Amino acid sequence: MDYLEQSFNIRYHYKIFFTEGLFDSDNLLLADFFNGESSAAQKKVLFVLDAGLVDANPALETAITAYFQVHRAVELVSEILIVPGGEAAKNNPAVLESIIEAVDVHGIDRHSYIAAVGGGAVLDLVGYAAAIAHRGIRHLRIPTTVLAQNDSGVGVKNGVNYKGKKNFLGSFSPPVAVFNDKQFLLTLNNRDFRSGISEAIKVALIKDPAFFTWIEAHASKLLNRDMESMEYLIKHCARLHLEHISSLDPFERGSSRPLDFGHWSAHKLEQLSNFSITHGEAVAMGMALDSTYSLYAGVLSEEKLQRILNLLALFFDITNPLIRITDLNAPILQGLQEFREHLGGNLCITLLRDVGEGFEVHEMDPHTLLQASQYILQFKKRQFDTNTFPL
Amino acid sequence: MDYLEQSFNIRYHYKIFFTEGLFDSDNLLLADFFNGESSAAQKKVLFVLDAGLVDANPALETAITAYFQVHRAVELVSEILIVPGGEAAKNNPAVLESIIEAVDVHGIDRHSYIAAVGGGAVLDLVGYAAAIAHRGIRHLRIPTTVLAQNDSGVGVKNGVNYKGKKNFLGSFSPPVAVFNDKQFLLTLNNRDFRSGISEAIKVALIKDPAFFTWIEAHASKLLNRDMESMEYLIKHCARLHLEHISSLDPFERGSSRPLDFGHWSAHKLEQLSNFSITHGEAVAMGMALDSTYSLYAGVLSEEKLQRILNLLALFFDITNPLIRITDLNAPILQGLQEFREHLGGNLCITLLRDVGEGFEVHEMDPHTLLQASQYILQFKKRQFDTNTFPL
Repeated sequence: MDYLEQSFNIRYHYKIFFTEGLFDSDNLLLADFFNGESSAAQKKVLFVLDAGLVDANPALETAITAYFQVHRAVELVSEILIVPGGEAAKNNPAVLESIIEAVDVHGIDRHSYIAAVGGGAVLDLVGYAAAIAHRGIRHLRIPTTVLAQNDSGVGVKNGVNYKGKKNFLGSFSPPVAVFNDKQFLLTLNNRDFRSGISEAIKVALIKDPAFFTWIEAHASKLLNRDMESMEYLIKHCARLHLEHISSLDPFERGSSRPLDFGHWSAHKLEQLSNFSITHGEAVAMGMALDSTYSLYAGVLSEEKLQRILNLLALFFDITNPLIRITDLNAPILQGLQEFREHLGGNLCITLLRDVGEGFEVHEMDPHTLLQASQYILQFKKRQFDTNTFPL
Repeated sequence: MDYLEQSFNIRYHYKIFFTEGLFDSDNLLLADFFNGESSAAQKKVLFVLDAGLVDANPALETAITAYFQVHRAVELVSEILIVPGGEAAKNNPAVLESIIEAVDVHGIDRHSYIAAVGGGAVLDLVGYAAAIAHRGIRHLRIPTTVLAQNDSGVGVKNGVNYKGKKNFLGSFSPPVAVFNDKQFLLTLNNRDFRSGISEAIKVALIKDPAFFTWIEAHASKLLNRDMESMEYLIKHCARLHLEHISSLDPFERGSSRPLDFGHWSAHKLEQLSNFSITHGEAVAMGMALDSTYSLYAGVLSEEKLQRILNLLALFFDITNPLIRITDLNAPILQGLQEFREHLGGNLCITLLRDVGEGFEVHEMDPHTLLQASQYILQFKKRQFDTNTFPL
């Protein structure tokens, strides 16, 4: 056999900074970051902001402009883009196009920066635009929701939807830095504040029993928006997420995706709800389903399942009728096939054998899913007092 | 400073196979490749063919279908896509969309394959579609032109054009394998056959003087389409190209791009000609310009320059009037700024101090470029007899 061979390694390295008041002119974190970046020429930074965030923080644009008037390590592109938040941004190709066009018009080159400030959907969208323009522009993530700060924003994926299919187009493109500013969390509504807790419960359920116990113990504080508790939750969840990515298969070439616990149905539930439920809410419903499936599969005790459903139900409406599986043609079951395609043919589903101990299976029985869905819908009726934990 | 840190390496590895009659059913190369790939589930392969190639090889579709009826390591997707060849494919978003749609319709997952068969532009386009669909579908390249077999097809880049700007959208996404089938070269017209020689001269000029001498010595044979000479040229050029990629900066995070010798003006020349000149022809013109610039910059002797221009002029019309720079507003000079942006702010231009010895500079003087362009346009008049080499 006549051939040449090519092989090389690409190293990725970035920091996730935790700060408060990132754009306060006396906060040097961002300026120091840009000063520390190697570059001969004057670089530019294009900011793209989440419209929902701007509504809640009307002074944000002014603050960013003022910051870069004081700190001149990079040149702020005069036009600050504002794009719709949530899945709307990822569904509309014109929004992606508007970012690409700004890269062209403002001459953003591959050693300049695109900074995304917003929730997970905006970070996904902007990260994708940055990944494909000029074969990759340096990308800064400034996540502003709990979910983005503890999960999607610190990871390596981006994407947009195509014909309603979530993240059908995207790439694995690590950011050059992530800035988690806790001040942004103060303006979140309760629903968004809680949504991000879902991914923390997820990572606790599959690999960190002590963290699950911690969340149970701090549930009341989290519901009451105690910021110290939320800071701990975000940082611990982000750390687990980062460790998971780097220790296994960062660009997901294999089929194993334990961090996708509960996600096969979550993606479909979001779509079936026309994205009226948030990703975090959908993941909570999906975890309820797959935890209950674990019971019927004979691997998880009912006592442990009740503990899980109780915690989920504290923060989320897990008995939302969308979870109902009436027969084998139920729309939610299509999610299994779509997830299989997205993973690459070989289905990998995480089930639980204990709180904090996930494992993988490669098929799901739809009849058992039907039973699991019925169990969850009845859960409300025999719910414990939500202030009582089995601890 | 409060932060978490993330770092990991991604390893890329692929082979470039050399064969003849890839789709002959008794050629086991492709079947063995698929059999050797790890996968539990039955995988699919979607073929995308270059329309120009299909015109020249009307039996190709039938041959591919017949091959996978005999060899069933993967399932051939029944629809074989045929897309326009050349820059037309990269300029038209609808062509990209048609590939994405096929991925969706035929349920191509991330462990399945998209195989591109054609010239460099089709490989760029299909490689880009494969890179972004499902965050990256395994991509096979089957280059069918000299240029694609010795240069672009064996590398790691893909891309499409945006508003006429070459490769404005794209990514660095190594293929899983490349199959160079020499039979495809037989159906090329003379112009395409020669075009690919340009990149071989390029790599010889910047790093391999012995290879330059070899090309001079085999110029007549190459002009007469001697296949043994062409096979050597392709394989040697591909090897140099691969070594260059793996030894330096595969995903071009720095500014150094010595393999882009002659390319700043080549990209612009292609665009100014409305893509009526080929990439190889444009690169030849660009190399003539930057070699002559090296003379005026005082780093290359006129004797060596004449040797270079003589070889280039054997294969290419380097005195094409498009190379004319009449004043500092000449359109070709805009190519410098566009190249600077594409590189990332810091201009890196390769000049020659000898045949086989390139080096980098970070600016170009437009007045000197004007002189260089005039020198080339007069070159025809004092051209040597093309059969006489200064050896």
